Amino acid sequence: MSDESTTGAYVTTGQEFDRDMNYIPDRITRDSSQWPVEPGRYRLVAAKACPWANRAIIVRGILGLEDVISLGLCGPVHDRRSWTFDLDPGGVDPVLGYERLQEAYFARYPDYPRGITVPAMVDVPTRAVVTNDFPWITHDLFHEWRDHHRPDAPDLWPDDVRDEMEDVMKRVFTEVNNGVYRCGFAGSQETYEAAYERLWTAMDWLEDRLTDRRYLMGDHITEADVRLFTTLARFDAVYHGHFKCNRNKLTEMPNLWGYARDVFQTPGFGETIDFDQIKAHYYVVHTDINPTQIVPAGPDPRVWTTPHGRERV
Amino acid sequence: MSDESTTGAYVTTGQEFDRDMNYIPDRITRDSSQWPVEPGRYRLVAAKACPWANRAIIVRGILGLEDVISLGLCGPVHDRRSWTFDLDPGGVDPVLGYERLQEAYFARYPDYPRGITVPAMVDVPTRAVVTNDFPWITHDLFHEWRDHHRPDAPDLWPDDVRDEMEDVMKRVFTEVNNGVYRCGFAGSQETYEAAYERLWTAMDWLEDRLTDRRYLMGDHITEADVRLFTTLARFDAVYHGHFKCNRNKLTEMPNLWGYARDVFQTPGFGETIDFDQIKAHYYVVHTDINPTQIVPAGPDPRVWTTPHGRERV
Repeated sequence: MSDESTTGAYVTTGQEFDRDMNYIPDRITRDSSQWPVEPGRYRLVAAKACPWANRAIIVRGILGLEDVISLGLCGPVHDRRSWTFDLDPGGVDPVLGYERLQEAYFARYPDYPRGITVPAMVDVPTRAVVTNDFPWITHDLFHEWRDHHRPDAPDLWPDDVRDEMEDVMKRVFTEVNNGVYRCGFAGSQETYEAAYERLWTAMDWLEDRLTDRRYLMGDHITEADVRLFTTLARFDAVYHGHFKCNRNKLTEMPNLWGYARDVFQTPGFGETIDFDQIKAHYYVVHTDINPTQIVPAGPDPRVWTTPHGRERV
Repeated sequence: MSDESTTGAYVTTGQEFDRDMNYIPDRITRDSSQWPVEPGRYRLVAAKACPWANRAIIVRGILGLEDVISLGLCGPVHDRRSWTFDLDPGGVDPVLGYERLQEAYFARYPDYPRGITVPAMVDVPTRAVVTNDFPWITHDLFHEWRDHHRPDAPDLWPDDVRDEMEDVMKRVFTEVNNGVYRCGFAGSQETYEAAYERLWTAMDWLEDRLTDRRYLMGDHITEADVRLFTTLARFDAVYHGHFKCNRNKLTEMPNLWGYARDVFQTPGFGETIDFDQIKAHYYVVHTDINPTQIVPAGPDPRVWTTPHGRERV
């Protein structure tokens, strides 16, 4: 995501962090006349650094949509104007022909005034962004693209727990996914401390919830796990120090740490985590909280592949 | 210490951190004509925030010198010019009558050009600083003030291990005490990474050394332990995040963590550690690495009083 990307200023002195949640609300659906589900037509533009984009990378992979929706990847360190395709040969996305994701936004709206965010679904024929509304993107990859899932794709949105799952995902979003940013971009000691209390109240709730549930909703991985996982994967590498979420490391919470490794070691999850890109993104881009732009060398990511012991839960 | 105190700039872009080790080289000794050992004559000015000053506070206490050398304490958050007596009623040290430690330096040298550092030994009659040469201050509290030690004072400088202890203290100073600053104030990614490697090489050496030694030099606490302890006490609270010494927390190194708690729980040590002052100092003063000046709420300091199990070593 990073709707902050085009401002370069993440902290507003004296203020609580307030995420701009106004995204392009279009959706790609089976019944849409403008943006119908159509294999080969759309390109998912993401960045391995970004937790919100990481969700879409994971869901596209575990549902087996690689052959019907292509993937473009931006580098970790965007500039003030846009995420860029600096990882590609010549710094140009080979399908869209763009150097900057911003170009896809401008192809749709020449005066697009908001942040240039990932993930974004781009219409390849017009090279214009369709939507950057991240919760709907993963929702629709599951519900609207069902005809193209691989045969053994997981049921990420099981009907029998849907209501509870919506509640869990809402709390995970406001308190954890966004909660870490509320700590890191707090503009005063008071707003930081309030954010810290909210975050750890939720982390304790999750630690407790995972005592007798292998995954958030029970015995199977769901969309709720995808959404929590991309934040947990960044916790000790970035949020603990850079965002001052330092009551303890994730590794110090037995259930959450076992759970996080369990998900990491599930095919389709850990392969999408690039700790170097993650650290580079946060520590280099947020110059108002890390003006030296020096990227910490720790922690050792090899702990993620240690036995998690969650089979017994 | 904080010889950086009067500059307000801790990081020099592109440079390795280089501590100014030029202190006022005077010493208070039994044989000195200018600065003889004399009960009641000198005031130790320290700050609980500062690891170098913390050494002198500990040594004065465990040797039982409280009644012969008085103690003045500066607040944790000094300004660009000086440590200040902002914790005292009216913001004035009750013995020296100063608001700023700088005044004691200027009483000695009107044009004193270097950093205004703690610890400083101040001659009360003239209200002028005698010395701020911190390794000699604790050395002389032991060797020169022996006649005034309490009867059961520990032998902090045992003759039979003196040579090895000097080697250990030298390595602890360059690689750990100062090594954490070399990480935190690195002016480039390259100097940071080199500093990080040096630090962790030394931390691994200490972890190994403490496998079969209860304290650094064997069965008894020495000056070497005092010097290491004041850095370890700050490790997870400050150096791990703020200085990017984040390969792991101190709590993740079994021998060092057991050792650190063992020393912390020894009378005269833990009482001198004020985590709130420590965090306030580093996070508020170093604006070039923490421009928001927000002080992290974690970690929970109660872990320091948990059983350490080092009696069996």
